Order: sequence, then structure tokens, then C-alpha cells
Amino acid sequence: MSTGSPLRIGVFVFDGAEELDVVGPYDVLSSWALHSPLRPEVLTFSSDGQGVRCAKGLCLVPDTSAHEVGPLHVLVYPGGQGTRALAADTHHLAWVREVRAATPLVASVCTGALVLAAAGLLAGRPATTHWAAFDELVALDPSVLPDDEARFVDDGDVVTSAGVSAGIDMALHLVARLEGVEAARAVRRGIQYDPEPPV
Amino acid sequence: MSTGSPLRIGVFVFDGAEELDVVGPYDVLSSWALHSPLRPEVLTFSSDGQGVRCAKGLCLVPDTSAHEVGPLHVLVYPGGQGTRALAADTHHLAWVREVRAATPLVASVCTGALVLAAAGLLAGRPATTHWAAFDELVALDPSVLPDDEARFVDDGDVVTSAGVSAGIDMALHLVARLEGVEAARAVRRGIQYDPEPPV
Repeated sequence: MSTGSPLRIGVFVFDGAEELDVVGPYDVLSSWALHSPLRPEVLTFSSDGQGVRCAKGLCLVPDTSAHEVGPLHVLVYPGGQGTRALAADTHHLAWVREVRAATPLVASVCTGALVLAAAGLLAGRPATTHWAAFDELVALDPSVLPDDEARFVDDGDVVTSAGVSAGIDMALHLVARLEGVEAARAVRRGIQYDPEPPV
Repeated sequence: MSTGSPLRIGVFVFDGAEELDVVGPYDVLSSWALHSPLRPEVLTFSSDGQGVRCAKGLCLVPDTSAHEVGPLHVLVYPGGQGTRALAADTHHLAWVREVRAATPLVASVCTGALVLAAAGLLAGRPATTHWAAFDELVALDPSVLPDDEARFVDDGDVVTSAGVSAGIDMALHLVARLEGVEAARAVRRGIQYDPEPPV
């Protein structure tokens, strides 16, 4: 699947991934990819390359499989109910550690942080997750330094975000970090992200 | 596909639909459906029931087809580059008018409003769309009353939203309208929608 782009971004999808955890960052990053001189490439992939049924029932067909996705610069790991099974799957956690070792930047959304914690990636590090999942996070790795106020936590090579919609803010931050603030502002304007929650 | 729910909500998907236009409202409305005593049912459907390739490349497999989706209480019509072809497709516009006549509430996201305008659904009515698409909107129907400041415009049986991410705000408004403000606040808390755009 490689096109030789140095900025290959893989969004991992799985059964029970929360739809907006996947698509918030995907839309931000792929909107950026359309216009950036860095020519980022944004791909979705599942473990086996087959389609997945997300947490609320939406069915996605990914671009490729974990085996075929190739080297990534950024791994985006969404949250959702499906993370509980993955955080208990030793085979999957070994794969997460393997990808992490080869990937400069790993970014979780929401309860994706639970899988990173279970794989040992957050040991002794500051991190965030969905507001209702901090007990689970610390149970998986008591050395994690939970930050329940941040919208996202950038700890260098690992970035974690708060729940669901926070993935949009985190992805805009990734664009600012990978290219610059002006690029991120252009994406924000493109997706008209001037939120006004009505309730 | 009907389960007898009086609150059947159909999210129309099509080639070139903007991913976040689809999934923002879908996640809000299906998060609501999980907990609401009104038992809303949220379905995705495409014209022919086949999978679609969204504007940035994400492939979705909908629940059903336009023929099979059955009576809806709410139609959500996303935007995206694919709306330009649909707004010029007389067969599709006839279907939009037919669905509209049988559906109490039609809600567009972003450039979904272009298709509603082309079908004549916005004649003489206030409406919004993506900030870059107002000229197109008025060209399609000069009688539309464009509102370029609102995050969404609720004109009773037709609701339109501004660009892409505005669909999240609009969907929260729909929850508030269909059940109540507390239900919408619970969804907002569930998806941790306390946006803090970092740029």
C-alpha cells in the first residue's frame, strides 16, 4: 500500500470502535492530506483487512490489513467498547508493542488509551482517556499519570485524547505539530469547526 | 427493516459524502438511541443499498437501501463533494421530494442543503450550508433566505446546518427537540463534547 510518503498515517479500526473516534481524526487528517505540500497519506486498516462493525453498528471497509499496511509515521488508535476485548488480547498487545517500536508517533482517542496502557506503552507517562474510563486506565497500569482535565495530552511520541469528540481537537493538534499552525487552521476552517454546543 | 419504532431516523449515505457529515450526526443520534425511552432507531441507507466511498475515501456499508428503508421520522442528508452530482440528478431529486412528503423532519448537513435546494425544499425558507457554498445555494434556488451566521437553522420541518462539524451541533439540537434538553446533555457528556479547538 505504500506510495513512498514519509507521512503515512494509519487509523486502526476494529469491531466495536466508536464511530466518531475513528472519523473525527480521519476527516481532519484526510482534509489536511488533500492540500498539504507534505503529501500525507491517511489509511484505515483492520487486523485482518476485513470490514468491521463499529460500536453503534456502522460498518466500515478499511483500506488494508495490519499485515499489509506497511511502515507508519503515525498510528491513530480509536476507542470504543471494542477496546476491552483488545486490551485483554495478549496477541494483539504484542502487535501493538511491535507497531509502537517502529512508529514515531502513537495517538489514541478516548478508550484507545486502555489498549495502549495494557500494552505497557503508557508506563510512568501522563495520559488521558474518556472521563468515565480513568479507573480502568489506572487498573491496567497503576504507573500511568492520569490527566482528567486535558482535552489531549501530548507526551512526545505518545499522544492521548479525552473521550470521543476530543479526537477532533487532538487531530488538529497533530496537523499543527506535523506541518504547522496555519495548516491546522486551514483544516479547521474547511470543516467549519467553530463548535457551538446547543445544550 | 422496520422494528415499529415511531422514531426511525435514516442517515442517507452516497459516494462522495463527507465522512464527518455522516458520522457526527450518526454518533450523536445513535448514542441517544442507546439510552432513550423513546427507542429511536438510527439506520444508514444508500440509494441501492450497496456500499459507498465517501469524499475522503472511507468506505461504508449501509444498513439498507432507499427502497427498503421504510417510513422515516427524520431524514439526515449529509453534504460532501458528491452532492453536486446529486443536485443535478432529476431522478434523485424526485426521490428527495417523495421522501420529504412522507417524512416529518428533513435535516441537512453542510452541502446537503444544495440537494434540498435543488429539489425545491428550501423555497422561500431560511437555510444554511457550508460557508463556501452560499453562492451555489442561492444559484440553485434564489428564493432561499441564506443565514451565514447560524450554526444550524431550525425552520420547523426542515433543519439545515453549516459545514461538516456543525452536524454534531445540529444533531444535539435534534435530540433536544425530539426528547428534551436533558437527553441531549447526556449525549453531549457521553461523547465528551466539550470542544477546545487547539488552533
